[in-house]
Amino acid sequence: MFISKVDTLLESIRKLTRRGAYQNVKNILEKLHAADVAYLFRYLNEGEQHKVFGLIADSEMASEILSQVDSPTSARILTRLEREQAAEILHGMDPDDKVSILEDIAEEVRDDILAHLSESDAESIEEMFQYPEDSAGRIMNTNYFALQEDVTVSDAISELQKKGADATEMVFYVYVVDSRNHLIGVCSLRQLLLVPPSHTVMSVMAHDVVSVSAETDQEDVARLVEKYDFLAVPVTDDENKLLGIVTVDDVIDIIRHEATEDILKMVGTGDEYLNRSVFRRARMRMPWMLAAFVGEIIGIQFLNMYNVTLEKIVALALFLPIIIAMGGNIGATSMTIVVRGLATGRIAVKELRVVILKELYVASILGVLYGLMLAALAYFQFGDVNYLGFVVGLSMLISMLMAAAIGTLMPILLHLLKIDPAVATGPFVTSTVDSLGILIYMALATAILM
Amino acid sequence: MFISKVDTLLESIRKLTRRGAYQNVKNILEKLHAADVAYLFRYLNEGEQHKVFGLIADSEMASEILSQVDSPTSARILTRLEREQAAEILHGMDPDDKVSILEDIAEEVRDDILAHLSESDAESIEEMFQYPEDSAGRIMNTNYFALQEDVTVSDAISELQKKGADATEMVFYVYVVDSRNHLIGVCSLRQLLLVPPSHTVMSVMAHDVVSVSAETDQEDVARLVEKYDFLAVPVTDDENKLLGIVTVDDVIDIIRHEATEDILKMVGTGDEYLNRSVFRRARMRMPWMLAAFVGEIIGIQFLNMYNVTLEKIVALALFLPIIIAMGGNIGATSMTIVVRGLATGRIAVKELRVVILKELYVASILGVLYGLMLAALAYFQFGDVNYLGFVVGLSMLISMLMAAAIGTLMPILLHLLKIDPAVATGPFVTSTVDSLGILIYMALATAILM
Repeated sequence: MFISKVDTLLESIRKLTRRGAYQNVKNILEKLHAADVAYLFRYLNEGEQHKVFGLIADSEMASEILSQVDSPTSARILTRLEREQAAEILHGMDPDDKVSILEDIAEEVRDDILAHLSESDAESIEEMFQYPEDSAGRIMNTNYFALQEDVTVSDAISELQKKGADATEMVFYVYVVDSRNHLIGVCSLRQLLLVPPSHTVMSVMAHDVVSVSAETDQEDVARLVEKYDFLAVPVTDDENKLLGIVTVDDVIDIIRHEATEDILKMVGTGDEYLNRSVFRRARMRMPWMLAAFVGEIIGIQFLNMYNVTLEKIVALALFLPIIIAMGGNIGATSMTIVVRGLATGRIAVKELRVVILKELYVASILGVLYGLMLAALAYFQFGDVNYLGFVVGLSMLISMLMAAAIGTLMPILLHLLKIDPAVATGPFVTSTVDSLGILIYMALATAILM
Repeated sequence: MFISKVDTLLESIRKLTRRGAYQNVKNILEKLHAADVAYLFRYLNEGEQHKVFGLIADSEMASEILSQVDSPTSARILTRLEREQAAEILHGMDPDDKVSILEDIAEEVRDDILAHLSESDAESIEEMFQYPEDSAGRIMNTNYFALQEDVTVSDAISELQKKGADATEMVFYVYVVDSRNHLIGVCSLRQLLLVPPSHTVMSVMAHDVVSVSAETDQEDVARLVEKYDFLAVPVTDDENKLLGIVTVDDVIDIIRHEATEDILKMVGTGDEYLNRSVFRRARMRMPWMLAAFVGEIIGIQFLNMYNVTLEKIVALALFLPIIIAMGGNIGATSMTIVVRGLATGRIAVKELRVVILKELYVASILGVLYGLMLAALAYFQFGDVNYLGFVVGLSMLISMLMAAAIGTLMPILLHLLKIDPAVATGPFVTSTVDSLGILIYMALATAILM
């Protein structure tokens, strides 16, 4: 199903649901791939989601769909079901999907559902919950395919055949462990086929396996997979015992999610924003706006400090917005470059000095250019105030330099303090740049014109 | 190699290179994975990159490294080599890597290098260049593994063994074609192992293969792979003939790249920014800053229209920055949510009306809240002007609503006009919001206070 077909499908499902033609909706749903149904869920409102989900009779299909819907939505849907049914649907999922949905379910409901799961299911989930949030231990699939070192290739293949459709579909690496489950090697399915059936897997495996610990942050796992073009990476404990694998499809979700999160955090919201009601949205944005508000109030006080200057030369007020805005523009760009560069690893901590210096150079080029243009405008349009052009142009240059410095330094500082630099650097940088810009402009104006 | 080790490695390589201890650098490089060397290249300056690359004697290793370095850098390095050597290094790469590097090489140099490649190499590259930029045809690997429908499983396996190390490493799907190379099915390597060796591949393959056309945009390919958790997707021509495959590692690069590009484009730069010299950086940002500059100049004119009001009530100037800034904050957030939502497909075109309305609701909640706070401040600190608090608070509310409308509408409009909404919506939204904010504020002040 291509994305362009979504609109047509949505329309028919909505029309049929409204008319109560549930059997027809069922027929449509049955013909779709679970991933397609999951995709449709993005565009249905909560009521529609519950209604449509209720029409899915097959519990295996239900598991597959909810594995692929975003976790907060899946959590909400499961919470509304009978606990027993919720447990049955959860049971059909991969361990990592179970955990990610249960993370979003209220604790008392979660315990209730866990009580309805089989003991082994519940135990393995509780084990994964021991690992920190957003760690490899939370996103790993414990349903991997591993063999003992002395198994022959032909035994390996028949083992694989026996696992059949039961095993996770994503088998492309075969992990090799010793008798105590220590990870000692890896080979691809294709490599298995390259040697005579009587050889042991040990003879074909690679010994230097790249693995991550269960505590590794998921973003680091993603970078590793990305760097080496892996399809999966094994997760081990402190003793190098194999715990699970993180597969490339999860890595794609992490990368997409983190990028969106970074973008939205910079402007003071988050990835869940679109799932929220209007009031929740306002509440999410309120604290970051408060930071901006307070910063701007400080700006008012700075401005008011120079109210004598302002009253004498009212024309100064005309250039306040442009001086602030151009500084803000420079600050936002520098900040974004640094935040994204740190997130993708494109900027290394060692290179930070160079990054700052280069941004200052760039700002000085742009500052001289636009400062001159603004000075010319001020001179020709408001030539009745002597030196106004000079003050305005110089203020723009200096405030652009200041903005580049703050735009680069603020995220770097947060990064060095181990605070995520993406979190609302936006409002802080903007309001700091604004109020300092006001100070620079008014101080210069007072010194030169008064 | 973990990311934390990069700094230590970089330091030793730099120290040794400066000392001229090239043999030691060679020894270090030989012990590293190509992906690690490629990673180091991000942090070396141009001179260091060329020097270090010159120490890599093995042309296969050189191919692997340049496949993984970002294309503009690889292009620069290849351009500086003898054409014959460049051709040899290119020859060792996958077709998609060849194309992506050649895209970044100046045309006359490119033709020169192509002339040094084998005829079949040059031909297949030229064929891929026929497809539009950023299309599946440009990023596909033409080195895939396909079998005729009537081949038996045992023949398939021996075929796979024969291809051996020559074939691309990423074999996990086996594509099945008819005698005229039409794509008719697919099965995983693992499925091949599940049936008796005497069966044909046709008996095990799935018939409904999801494929993309060579003209499909790479972002659509990425979304498809992401949605269905594919490891690769086949690329076909109009007649459904198999042309190549796009693998999941390329999809990861696309997703990461597009996210970075979206973030940076919004603030008026691009992904290549960090690779550029200071002057090129300034030149990249100049046009977007000009858009902001012109918008702000219009704001000055608006402000100047009301210079009588301003001269009479100078206190109005004090609140200019905060009214503009809070509007800008709302506008930037709304814009970012819409741009990212459209890019990830989280916001469908059909839902746009709802998105706009919800953003307006959110803005009105925040506008009332912060409008009241500002009105209170104006009343208590500058109570000597009657109704100043009222004007200031109301202006903030209205300009925040206006900002939410422009922040959502501008990217939507660009999207409907088939213009990438990420491209510098930032400066346009900011300057429009600023100048309209000035107009609202001064018009209200004049109407109420004068």
